[in-house]
Formats: sequence, C-alpha cells, structure tokens
Amino acid sequence: MIGRYQPFHLGHLQCIQHVLKKLPEVIIAIGSAQFSHTLHNPFTAGERLTMIRLAMDEAKINASTYYVIPIRDLRVHDLWVAHVVSQTPRFEIVFSNEPVTSRLFKEAGFRVEPIPFYDRETYSATEIRERVVKGESWDKLVPASVAAYIKSIFGDERLRELALSDSPKHQKSARASPF
Amino acid sequence: MIGRYQPFHLGHLQCIQHVLKKLPEVIIAIGSAQFSHTLHNPFTAGERLTMIRLAMDEAKINASTYYVIPIRDLRVHDLWVAHVVSQTPRFEIVFSNEPVTSRLFKEAGFRVEPIPFYDRETYSATEIRERVVKGESWDKLVPASVAAYIKSIFGDERLRELALSDSPKHQKSARASPF
Amino acid sequence: MIGRYQPFHLGHLQCIQHVLKKLPEVIIAIGSAQFSHTLHNPFTAGERLTMIRLAMDEAKINASTYYVIPIRDLRVHDLWVAHVVSQTPRFEIVFSNEPVTSRLFKEAGFRVEPIPFYDRETYSATEIRERVVKGESWDKLVPASVAAYIKSIFGDERLRELALSDSPKHQKSARASPF
Amino acid sequence: MIGRYQPFHLGHLQCIQHVLKKLPEVIIAIGSAQFSHTLHNPFTAGERLTMIRLAMDEAKINASTYYVIPIRDLRVHDLWVAHVVSQTPRFEIVFSNEPVTSRLFKEAGFRVEPIPFYDRETYSATEIRERVVKGESWDKLVPASVAAYIKSIFGDERLRELALSDSPKHQKSARASPF
Amino acid sequence: MIGRYQPFHLGHLQCIQHVLKKLPEVIIAIGSAQFSHTLHNPFTAGERLTMIRLAMDEAKINASTYYVIPIRDLRVHDLWVAHVVSQTPRFEIVFSNEPVTSRLFKEAGFRVEPIPFYDRETYSATEIRERVVKGESWDKLVPASVAAYIKSIFGDERLRELALSDSPKHQKSARASPF
Amino acid sequence: MIGRYQPFHLGHLQCIQHVLKKLPEVIIAIGSAQFSHTLHNPFTAGERLTMIRLAMDEAKINASTYYVIPIRDLRVHDLWVAHVVSQTPRFEIVFSNEPVTSRLFKEAGFRVEPIPFYDRETYSATEIRERVVKGESWDKLVPASVAAYIKSIFGDERLRELALSDSPKHQKSARASPF
Repeated sequence: MIGRYQPFHLGHLQCIQHVLKKLPEVIIAIGSAQFSHTLHNPFTAGERLTMIRLAMDEAKINASTYYVIPIRDLRVHDLWVAHVVSQTPRFEIVFSNEPVTSRLFKEAGFRVEPIPFYDRETYSATEIRERVVKGESWDKLVPASVAAYIKSIFGDERLRELALSDSPKHQKSARASPF
Repeated sequence: MIGRYQPFHLGHLQCIQHVLKKLPEVIIAIGSAQFSHTLHNPFTAGERLTMIRLAMDEAKINASTYYVIPIRDLRVHDLWVAHVVSQTPRFEIVFSNEPVTSRLFKEAGFRVEPIPFYDRETYSATEIRERVVKGESWDKLVPASVAAYIKSIFGDERLRELALSDSPKHQKSARASPF
Repeated sequence: MIGRYQPFHLGHLQCIQHVLKKLPEVIIAIGSAQFSHTLHNPFTAGERLTMIRLAMDEAKINASTYYVIPIRDLRVHDLWVAHVVSQTPRFEIVFSNEPVTSRLFKEAGFRVEPIPFYDRETYSATEIRERVVKGESWDKLVPASVAAYIKSIFGDERLRELALSDSPKHQKSARASPF
Repeated sequence: MIGRYQPFHLGHLQCIQHVLKKLPEVIIAIGSAQFSHTLHNPFTAGERLTMIRLAMDEAKINASTYYVIPIRDLRVHDLWVAHVVSQTPRFEIVFSNEPVTSRLFKEAGFRVEPIPFYDRETYSATEIRERVVKGESWDKLVPASVAAYIKSIFGDERLRELALSDSPKHQKSARASPF
Repeated sequence: MIGRYQPFHLGHLQCIQHVLKKLPEVIIAIGSAQFSHTLHNPFTAGERLTMIRLAMDEAKINASTYYVIPIRDLRVHDLWVAHVVSQTPRFEIVFSNEPVTSRLFKEAGFRVEPIPFYDRETYSATEIRERVVKGESWDKLVPASVAAYIKSIFGDERLRELALSDSPKHQKSARASPF
Repeated sequence: MIGRYQPFHLGHLQCIQHVLKKLPEVIIAIGSAQFSHTLHNPFTAGERLTMIRLAMDEAKINASTYYVIPIRDLRVHDLWVAHVVSQTPRFEIVFSNEPVTSRLFKEAGFRVEPIPFYDRETYSATEIRERVVKGESWDKLVPASVAAYIKSIFGDERLRELALSDSPKHQKSARASPF
C-alpha cells in the first residue's frame, strides 16, 4: 500500500484494517520519503514512520502483520517499480488510487487494486494540512496518538510557517493529491 | 537536431528530410531521455527510438545517414552542452527552435539554426497527445508505422490513464512545448 | 546571509553594510548555485560571484571581512542545513527572509534573523529581471560596476532570449521570490 | 543499530537481544540499502529486511519493540547523519563498531556505544559470504529461517556467480568489513 | 550486446557479425557511457559511437540491422536492468560475458548467452590500451578506420597522458575487464 | 589553481605567492568539496576554506587578490571543466600538476601550467596526514594559524580515529595524491 501519509490519518488506518482482513501481511510504503518541510510534504519519513507505529499500536494491530518502509521518489518513472521491488519484501498486490503508480505496476505485470477509502472527502491529508494552516480544528481526523505526536514536535507550527513562503519552489498549495 | 519526439510525427520527418537535402548526416538527439509515463513525456527513450527507426525505414531514408541518440535532461543548464557533446559524434550545426537550447549552444560557440517546421499547428506532438487523451483521431499525423507501433504497445491507453492523475507531479497538461 | 543574487543589487549591498556594522564578518552564500540560464536564475554562480566582488570593491568593503560561497540547492530539505554547514566557515546567526530557510535553521538550533531590506519594492531582483525582459531601465538598481559587467557578458540579451521560451520548464516568470 | 546485514546472522541477533535487555526499543538501520548483487553487498534491502523479520519471529522478539529501516549510503559523509536522522524515529544512542560512523555521530553530538559482538570471528557476514563462495558449510551461522530463505531465493547461487566476475567494479573481495 | 568498447576492436566486430548471421537485428549498448578520460574508460560515448559506425561501414554491415545506444552505469544494480530496458528497443536475448550483467538479466527473466569471442587474448580492449600506453604497436587490432579515427582525435596521446596520473581515482590500471 | 588542500600547507602558500607575483588575481578552487571524514579527505570544504583564509591573513596577502571557491567532484570527467567554469569568475590559465585535470582543460582549449612546488617531498598534504595518524610532528609544515585551527576543531583526533576503520570504503591510505 503506497501513500505519502502527510500526515497518517483515520482514513489510512481504516484502509489498512480493511486489507488486513483479507491478507495476512501488508507493506506500508512511505512515498516521497526524501522530502519534508514543504506544504505538500511537511513531515520527514522518520516522523511519518513514527506516526504509523503510534496509530497501529493505538488500534492494537499486531506489529508482525505489517512492514513500514520509506521509499524515495526517483522522478524517473520507469525505474521506480524496480526501486520499490528492491526495497521491500516480496509482494503480490499493489493498492493504489494514483493513476501513474497503477499504470507503472500494471505494465510491470503486478495486480493493482484501488484503495477503498472511507469518507474520502473528510479523511484527507490535504484537508488536514489546509485546516492546520488556517488554524481550524484538525485533530479529530487523525488517531489521538498521532495528533499528540504532531503537536509534540511542533508540526502544526511548522506547517503554518511554511505557508508563509512566497518562493515558487514552496508555493505548491497544501491541497494537492489524494494521499 | 534536438527534440523530445513525444511522439515522432510527420512534421519531424519533413524536417529531417529537409536537413538531409543540405547535409550528409544528421544526429537525432532524443531529449528528456530519462522521462516517461507522464502526460508531457509518455514514451520511454527506447520506445521513441523505435518509432524513429520505423519512420525512417518507412520513408526509405538510408540508416547510415543518421544517428539516433538518447540524451538526458540535466536541469543544470551550463553542463548540458558539454553533456550533449560527450554523448554524440562531432557536429557543427545545431537545429533547434527552443530559445534556451539555442542560447546555450550559441554561448558555447556553435552555429544554431531554426528548425523549418511545416504546418506546425497541425503536426505538433502536443496536439497529438491531446487528441489521444480526448479520444479524437490522431493517427494521420504520424507515419503509419509509428501509429501501428504506438497501438501495439497500448501507448494510447497509457496516455489516457495518465490523464486521470490529479497529483501535481503529473498534472502538467499534455499541451506544453513545441516538440 | 543566504540569497540567490539574480542579480546582486543595491538592496543586497545595503543589507551587507548593515550586517557588517554589527558583526566582524559575513558569509554571503549564493543559493541555487547549480542553476543558470532560466528566467528565474539567469546567471551562473561564477557570474554572481563576480558581481558581488565588483560591488564590494566599488563600495570599498574590505575583502577580508566577507566570504562568498556558492551553495547548491539539494531539494531534500532536511539535508540542506548540513550541506550549508559543511561548505562554509563556522557561523552563528542566519539572515534570511525566506520562511522555509528560516524554519530549517531554527529547527537545527541556529539563531535566525530577518534581513532588513531597504525599499524592498524597488530594490528587488525580480523587478530587475522583469525590467530587463521588458526593455525598461534597470541599471540604476544595481551598483554601476555590476551593470557594466552584466552588459559586458550580454546578460541582458540572454535574459530577453530566455523569455522567448514556451517550454514549461522555462516558463516560470521572472517575478518569483524575494531574492 | 547500524549494519549492512549481508546477510543477517546469529551475531547480529545476539546483539539486538543484548540491546533490548537494556532499552525498550531498537532501530535496526540497514546500511548501503541501494546496493545489491556484488560480492560485498549481495542482497537487496528488501531481502535483508525479510531476513531480519524472519530471524526476529524465530527468536520470538516482539515486532513492536523494533523498527527495520533501509538507509542509503550517501558517500558525502557530512550529510549522512542528517540523512539517518530524517529517515528514522528519534533515537538517543548509536550502536556501531565502525570508526567513521562513530566519529560522524559523535561530532553531531550523539552518544555512541560499541556493539558487543559475541564470538566475532565466527559470526561474521564476511566469513559467511566467503564460505558460500567456496562451497563450504555456512548455514549454522545464521538463524534457520534465514538459511532457508537465502536458499529459496537462490542467494547462494547468486553469490557464487558474482564471484566469477573479473571486472574491477565487482572485484572487491567477499572479506571486507565487520558487518 | 553490452560492452564498453574502449576502444571498439576486431574481436567486437567478429562478434557482431556472428550474431547478425543468426538474428535480424542487434542492439549495441555502449556501457559506462558517462565515463571518459580515465585509463580504463579513455573515450567518451560519442567517440565510441563514432568508432562503431566507422567499423560497421568499413565492414559493409547495413546500418538498418543494428542500433548503437549509450547506456549509463547506475551503480545501483537492481535498477540497471530496468534502465537498459527503458533506453532500448525491445530485445529478447542478452549477449554478455560479464557475470554480474548475466546474473541481473537472468534474475529479470531474460535469456542470456555468452559472447563467442575470437582469439580473446589478442583482441582485447585492455591489451590495446596497454599497448598504447607503452608505445607498442596496436593498430592492427582494430579496424583501419577506427585506428585512423583514434589518431585523428589524439586518443593515443590522451591515453599516455592519463597514464601519468598518480591520483588514486585514476590509478586503475589499463588492464581490467574483458571488454 | 586547483587542489584539495587536505590540509592547506606551506607548499600551497608558496605556490600562491609565486602566482600572485606574476598575475593580479588567483582563484583557489577547493576540489572534492563534497567529501570529508575520510583518511584521504578528512576536512570539510568549509574547514579548508577557513584554513586558507587564516593562512592568507597570516601571510598578509590582500583578500581582494584571490577567490576561494569549493568545487565538487563530478566523476563524469567531460562535464567537469564546464562545472568549474560555471562556478568561478572568468580565468585564463589553469595551474595543475594532475595529469587528468591538465588533459581535460587542455582539450577544452585552456592554457595549463604546472604548479611550481617548493620542496614537494616535505610540503605534502599526504605526508602531513600520515604524520598526524602516526602521532609524529606535523605542525611545522603548515602555517601556524592553520595548525592552531586544526587542533581547535580536533582535526588531528578525527584523522587518528578515521585511521582505525577497516571498511573498504575508508581504507584508502592517507598517502595518495600530490595535493
């Protein structure tokens, strides 16, 4: 299951619970792992990994049923499938709602399935980042342990400061992709 | 002659025929060679290279009068001329309509000439990609062998799927540059 | 003091003079050092370094009170502070008005101060690049030696040619960031 | 705890058990994660990650007490500590016997402790790789599940084939570093 | 057929002629394409490409039966097969005598065959580079047009100068790999 | 004048003084700028830049007569000259004793002159690094301010610790190149 988890929210969690009902193990691949400190990718891979472990423990999901693995973006699309394969245990199904990811894995011969998001309008990382920037309430959209962690590292303050940038590199709005 | 050839079309072919009337040999440099699977760069360098060979054979152009060489984008502009020079046989004239390319080669002391496009509005790779995405007729704009090849690798299907992406990385519209 | 200096102008100079009144030494870090030949980054790091030395000599600032050091953009934000630290002499205060830069150095434990720009609307590199492209008067906004240098390397002609590009890579307008 | 785990063996396992007696959680960082298919680094990061999970399950170590995270080599030493920090949850002690790693983390202000290897001569990844290449017995030096896994992916055959290379890039002998 | 062609010699030519008796088309992949100006890789990809075209023309091999394509080394082995595939037309058999290359393509599901070198001791690029450095006779080992070309670009002089380096980066001896 | 300055010593200083007698300005390019913390490249570019400024001030050389600019190694030789040119003010003569550097600049049309080292056996960075590692006296080979600086950052301790590594990446002996 490939996502950016900026941040990890209750929709992601429901997804993983859904997959684990059908399959014995799931690999949670943290995409764009090298990026952080932008509106679109505010948290480091290590911070996102911490959120996921906290959320899984809170939901009492057995840690031996999942892997969490940071995966860099390569920009060179036709190497990316090989990169994912080399950094992860063997897998058979790819869960993704992103058309480019789906196409690449399909062309490489993998079975690709859509992620069954629950209430996708509300449980959206983009929505959460926007609420943080605007100073609106956001913490009910993520597991309680994730909300507490984000505050403990001043992640909400970081997002608000990043939103002040007028450099074109950083201007990409907080609203951007399904993850 | 530098282009991206996404895809190679009849305008490109006329160009090459025009140049080969005046010069004994032409180097066809496939730019942005590392990119593929985006709306702007749907085909791999290998696929584009295959299209060019098919088109040249169809047009009965002697293979010993041209070279086809993939060239990566470097993003670092002032290294790019040196990169092109290192990956190609010696050349004297650069054909390009792209102002940045022209400027870089001029500053490096090369003779730069515009590419005499025929009916540039119609024979345009951007126009072709847009027609594919919209499901309109496009195959009369490329050599017959190229149209057949694109269909055989499901290239039209690929483009339509890529157009579904709403990730900002892939949102660049199909209409973008003269090549 | 971190900036891109595209080009170095009188506002930058006032800034440095202001800092040198309070501190014995200043490091002038030329950001985005690997880029050149775009509307947003027209000049190479070497050209910008030359402008700075010319401006400092013209302003009779002692060369032993400052360092000028090119710094590449890494895109990977959380490595960038470590990169700056490794390429420069030891420093204690960071001067920056860019929120991402400020945030990154603050999180790394540095003291960050805003740059006290004088008449920021007028003395703006973006404004200067736009005037050059439009053929308006720009040379009163930079030190006389910098204006002469830019003309001697045909930098104004370069900018006007780059502005003709309609490739999306080069379309970023000349108006973009505070530096 | 930083290592390359080529392959993961009983010495590594004892180490982790030793650390987990003293600390509640350990991060197992798989170094040189981008490399594979050389004598010195035969296995991909994904394969090494699989070995570690198998070994930990076999030793009945609770999966919620450790993280396994692939970490790329950067070659640029003074960025590497920042890279490790960005890809992992917060940590306080670094376990390493490698002098460069130790020095870098010490200069960055971390507490660094040596890894208490048990019978380091025998339980050595280098020793294991050499035995595989020579066709000697090696499987008693790794957990039973790891030995079975390596055979199931023909990892022993891969190592013996790699040993046939006489290209200088691949000649680095199987005997090389403490991990 | 994958090689470095430093330089292209009569053994390479015999090989290609052998393959073209059995197959309609051959792709000649120039490996390590980004490297040049070392003892081990003295010539640029463009220079090697020129040698190959000259040799093929001299041997009266029809240019429409082969492709010549520069391929960069990636160092990251498990991405390299995907890289070769993306830069070339579709192929079914890989000809290589290099164990790492063979292993990687075999694991990716390709049919790999050894290159039937004729008189490999004599027709060896390493042997040729050593003879050039020592000032011995070498030109009978390459096609006449290649020998003339190397002399015309002062390639022999370049090799002798590179041999004077005592920097460890450049010390790799001229004798190194089968290509 | 291109060197690595690991560390900057009295031989380097004499060289610069020699050049400044004949020419109005000299660019001191710090090569391998991205490397540090190895036996061969123990100091960061920023540390080396600091040494040079200290040595020049101690020798009372006017700071407006020289530039000190870090330059990364690119490994891709035929881009390196273009890289040096883009990062530095315009220059006409290259001073280097390294055959590869000399060859590359000569092929690019530059005038290349050897560096007139004084007593090269004694004033050698390699010799200095070896003495530090062995605990022998080394501080008379560098300017007094440089010796004091190295000790203040525990640079001698760093070198001795790096020498303990038995990893092949770090094994390159302290004795390696003329700089």
